[in-house]
Amino acid sequence: MTKVQQPVRGWRGVPFSSVRIDDAFWRPRLEVLKNVTIDVCLRKCEETNRIRNFALAGGLAEGRFEGMYYNDSDVYKVLEGAAYALMTERDPALEAEIDRIAGLIEAAQEPDGYLSTYYTLEAPDRKWTDMEKHEMYNGGHLIEAAVAYYQATGKRRLLDVACRMADHYDAVFGPGKRHWAEGHEEIELALVKLFGATGEERYWKLALWLLEERGRGHGVGAIWDKPEWGPAYCQDDVPVRDIREVKGHAVRAMYLYTAMADVVLASGDPAYLAALDRVWAHTVERNLYVTGGIGPSVHNEGFTHDYDLPNESAYCETCAAIAMAFWNHRMNLLHGDGKYADLVERELFNGALSGISLSGDRFFYVNPLASKGEHHRVEWFHTSCCPTNLARFLPAIGQYLYAATEDGLAVNQYANGEAAVELVGGTGTVRIAQSTAYPWDGRVALTVTPEQEAPSEFAIRLRVPGWCRGYRVSAQGERVDGAEALTAKGYLVLKRRWAPGDTIELTLDMPVEVVRARPEAEADRGRIALQRGPVVYCVEQAGNAGLRYDGFALGAHEPFAVQHRAELLGGVTVLQGRTAEGEPCELVPYYAWDNREAGFMQVWVREAEDARLYRF
Amino acid sequence: MTKVQQPVRGWRGVPFSSVRIDDAFWRPRLEVLKNVTIDVCLRKCEETNRIRNFALAGGLAEGRFEGMYYNDSDVYKVLEGAAYALMTERDPALEAEIDRIAGLIEAAQEPDGYLSTYYTLEAPDRKWTDMEKHEMYNGGHLIEAAVAYYQATGKRRLLDVACRMADHYDAVFGPGKRHWAEGHEEIELALVKLFGATGEERYWKLALWLLEERGRGHGVGAIWDKPEWGPAYCQDDVPVRDIREVKGHAVRAMYLYTAMADVVLASGDPAYLAALDRVWAHTVERNLYVTGGIGPSVHNEGFTHDYDLPNESAYCETCAAIAMAFWNHRMNLLHGDGKYADLVERELFNGALSGISLSGDRFFYVNPLASKGEHHRVEWFHTSCCPTNLARFLPAIGQYLYAATEDGLAVNQYANGEAAVELVGGTGTVRIAQSTAYPWDGRVALTVTPEQEAPSEFAIRLRVPGWCRGYRVSAQGERVDGAEALTAKGYLVLKRRWAPGDTIELTLDMPVEVVRARPEAEADRGRIALQRGPVVYCVEQAGNAGLRYDGFALGAHEPFAVQHRAELLGGVTVLQGRTAEGEPCELVPYYAWDNREAGFMQVWVREAEDARLYRF
Repeated sequence: MTKVQQPVRGWRGVPFSSVRIDDAFWRPRLEVLKNVTIDVCLRKCEETNRIRNFALAGGLAEGRFEGMYYNDSDVYKVLEGAAYALMTERDPALEAEIDRIAGLIEAAQEPDGYLSTYYTLEAPDRKWTDMEKHEMYNGGHLIEAAVAYYQATGKRRLLDVACRMADHYDAVFGPGKRHWAEGHEEIELALVKLFGATGEERYWKLALWLLEERGRGHGVGAIWDKPEWGPAYCQDDVPVRDIREVKGHAVRAMYLYTAMADVVLASGDPAYLAALDRVWAHTVERNLYVTGGIGPSVHNEGFTHDYDLPNESAYCETCAAIAMAFWNHRMNLLHGDGKYADLVERELFNGALSGISLSGDRFFYVNPLASKGEHHRVEWFHTSCCPTNLARFLPAIGQYLYAATEDGLAVNQYANGEAAVELVGGTGTVRIAQSTAYPWDGRVALTVTPEQEAPSEFAIRLRVPGWCRGYRVSAQGERVDGAEALTAKGYLVLKRRWAPGDTIELTLDMPVEVVRARPEAEADRGRIALQRGPVVYCVEQAGNAGLRYDGFALGAHEPFAVQHRAELLGGVTVLQGRTAEGEPCELVPYYAWDNREAGFMQVWVREAEDARLYRF
Repeated sequence: MTKVQQPVRGWRGVPFSSVRIDDAFWRPRLEVLKNVTIDVCLRKCEETNRIRNFALAGGLAEGRFEGMYYNDSDVYKVLEGAAYALMTERDPALEAEIDRIAGLIEAAQEPDGYLSTYYTLEAPDRKWTDMEKHEMYNGGHLIEAAVAYYQATGKRRLLDVACRMADHYDAVFGPGKRHWAEGHEEIELALVKLFGATGEERYWKLALWLLEERGRGHGVGAIWDKPEWGPAYCQDDVPVRDIREVKGHAVRAMYLYTAMADVVLASGDPAYLAALDRVWAHTVERNLYVTGGIGPSVHNEGFTHDYDLPNESAYCETCAAIAMAFWNHRMNLLHGDGKYADLVERELFNGALSGISLSGDRFFYVNPLASKGEHHRVEWFHTSCCPTNLARFLPAIGQYLYAATEDGLAVNQYANGEAAVELVGGTGTVRIAQSTAYPWDGRVALTVTPEQEAPSEFAIRLRVPGWCRGYRVSAQGERVDGAEALTAKGYLVLKRRWAPGDTIELTLDMPVEVVRARPEAEADRGRIALQRGPVVYCVEQAGNAGLRYDGFALGAHEPFAVQHRAELLGGVTVLQGRTAEGEPCELVPYYAWDNREAGFMQVWVREAEDARLYRF
């Protein structure tokens, strides 16, 4: 068992319930999420008997378990998303539906607190015999849903179910009790969340124990023994403090690192910090798609070898991109470094957002960076983790916008709207408003309003995204000069006295950028991608009738007309230029592809040969 | 003798006398040029007896020739610049001084028209025995001065001297007469100019004959036989139509190509066009510094081998950068392609402009891209071609702003001010005004006013510079769409009906760009340069006390605060960031270096190692 060290003095997240997003980019998406996606997901959970499984397990209906052993988790995730939606806007009908489902869940819980309908219904005598059967994965998602619903409505019913289940885990597993390594991580971060909601330290300690169990031969079951995957598939190959490289199933790995970052905030274990820093660098420097996608392979839904980043066969599960945002959000809080918020942004505008159609009712599980035209969004999946993950990820994005720092607050993401940030140490609240047309325009006007009890002097950190090479900043209409104008750990730090209504004007240069991959990334050799601000672009057949898949090239010096087309794809800024062959071409944001007629798509485009002496 | 083919249907230049530059960037420089530089150069020509040599040759004074055999040319070049200054603003005192000097020049001309004071005074019996002695080079500059002064004042005195001299050349040299290949080209482009001013075709034909003489063994004298240089030094190694590669003395090569471009406009010889296109590609793709400098070597003041672009020892004569602008201006007119105007721009804001101090009275002959601190601007040179070249180049930059095209006009350079462009075919005049803070800001607002007799429909071409990846354009407040929004040969082409007062708004994204050289350019390996818009930046010791020469590195992802500092170096936009070692650093425009306390300077900075997967 790890010793608890000095807690890390990290930043504190600002819950999305304190953040209002009133943004031309995000508001329509959040509306669709609330009005379409959650309904669609609930209906699909009903139609596929995911909800009925609970009723069966609770003896409230007759029949056999249907579907996969992890299907409970989908129901929980939709409930979590629905709860988030309720925080923004009350909806009695939705709340009644959640209450109904909560009742079924409650009924499905066994008297000792055990809850996983597959085992209850199909194999009650084989519980905890196979790490791969997602018992605690389901449990983790229940906890997240329960905490969310409690926070949204104050109703304890689901939270009580979750606590009973967690107490059951705590009774069965732990030092001097049974060993366990859960095949699909999730429970660990959920237990930290439950600790946050209840104040019960045993939940946090159980999470730590579960993390420490990994990589010590305690994993059991078919997956662990599969020779082509082995324990690395579920990050059970080395103790977590010895992790050096990202391996195995991408979502599992990200959930593990997320939990490690959660736990280390309290434990302060330097070995955890070092492991996180190592594996972060290994993930980001060698195993990340430009879209933010991770996990190239369909075979293990995960990682293969360094720089293996094929485009057409890129797996890039939507859940993995979402989980990457989870992890990087924690890393940002842990280290107070903007480079992690850069990755949250990359997922928000690319790899995660691509998983959902503009209509909100079609999804990608797999997010390739090139397609000959056969890859399309669908309504639902047999394994439908991605739609339900989107349903809970998107309504909560407000939490990524701000953080409370040791000496003030940080603005991590730019979106029109406002927030109330409680400063650390209970010293007061600062209201902050953003006016911006981000991500289409790099200008952000901020208004700062410390509430009466707040200190008058504090620091406001403004993230300068990693894609940005040039920026201007002024405060109260005066140019910020000297050291204040330079970034530290990815932020401008404006430490001064603030009076209500004070203004900051930040302009981030947002040019069209030609992106190249390191030469080690074989699939991208001789290719370029286009990015503008945080948005990665692609060439889609729709709108480019003259082009054949991979049958054209772009010059790295091609100029593009940057046009905002309000009528297209929900309103996008497109790049209009010419191929090296002289054909007109129009690039659209990657996240928006496959929302028109079917056709090919490419992010990495062949680069036209260019004899120029200088490249920029 | 080459046959005259169909003339090339090129564009037509718009003389700077039709262009008013009322620009925050250029106006102060033009004022200094007029008020300081020309005076300084005239005084230096006086003090060094460059002017007295004419008096001696004319028998108006007693003494011996002083200085170098090409010193006459400096006097002519200052007169040319002074004439240009007079076109913008009359100045009776300056005009009187020119008249006085013109009288001395007239007196120095021999009865047969010969004019080169060195030979007249020192070696009258050795005329035309050594191609290296700049007899026609001097003559060429006389012609350019004479044409300029005639256009500025209507006074024929100097023009008559020039015509007598040219007629003398025509009498002595040509088909069936003496052979000649002038060692330092210049006469050829000057003769075309004289043809333009007088309408006398024999001048143009003599220029063509002189071009055709090269590379045929007609060169004579010590230089031609120097084994380490050989005839390539003065482009006398191959007939001009067979030129494949840029070679030898840089200024001479550029003047040659300039003349070839002038001549081919009338001759239409496809072999000339092909030779120009070949040698342009060879120059620009393999032998051009990022500053626009050319000619790396002090030994031949010129070219060595491909990609030989050392930084500290870069020769990059100011005259060569100016001549590169001359050539590319002609190429732009010849081909109607913006890529040539890109190079004019590169010289204007970098390689040529760096040759003169902000005070207008200190000069660089040599323009290295790195200096440990020993390289400084001085008042004058023994061979002072560069100051006098600047004195005539800068006052005439208005000519690079516009061109009359086959179907309207092209805007080649952006600067605040206005112009009257005569359309081709005498179909009328269009007034066009630019409102812009270029090169510090990429927004340009244009107002178009066709005069009454002008056609209402014509095309306006707007150059999208090669450094620009993204732009927006609107006309009459409405976004330009479709094919019109795309560039062709580097231009947006707005072909429509124009009414007086119609407006165009062009926004060129002007981010901080990281520039890399091709790997073949050994000196720049592992290094980056910074450019913003057309302006190349450098790190100067002044303002960067914490840095040691080449003792720091920059990260390619370093963000920079883009600050306009009106009080610094005549008003410059600086880039403020941090080195990889965390030291603050400030980059200033390359052209403005060595205007503060002495210290090191670097354009190509060591690039910090970066493990990132993607480069942009």
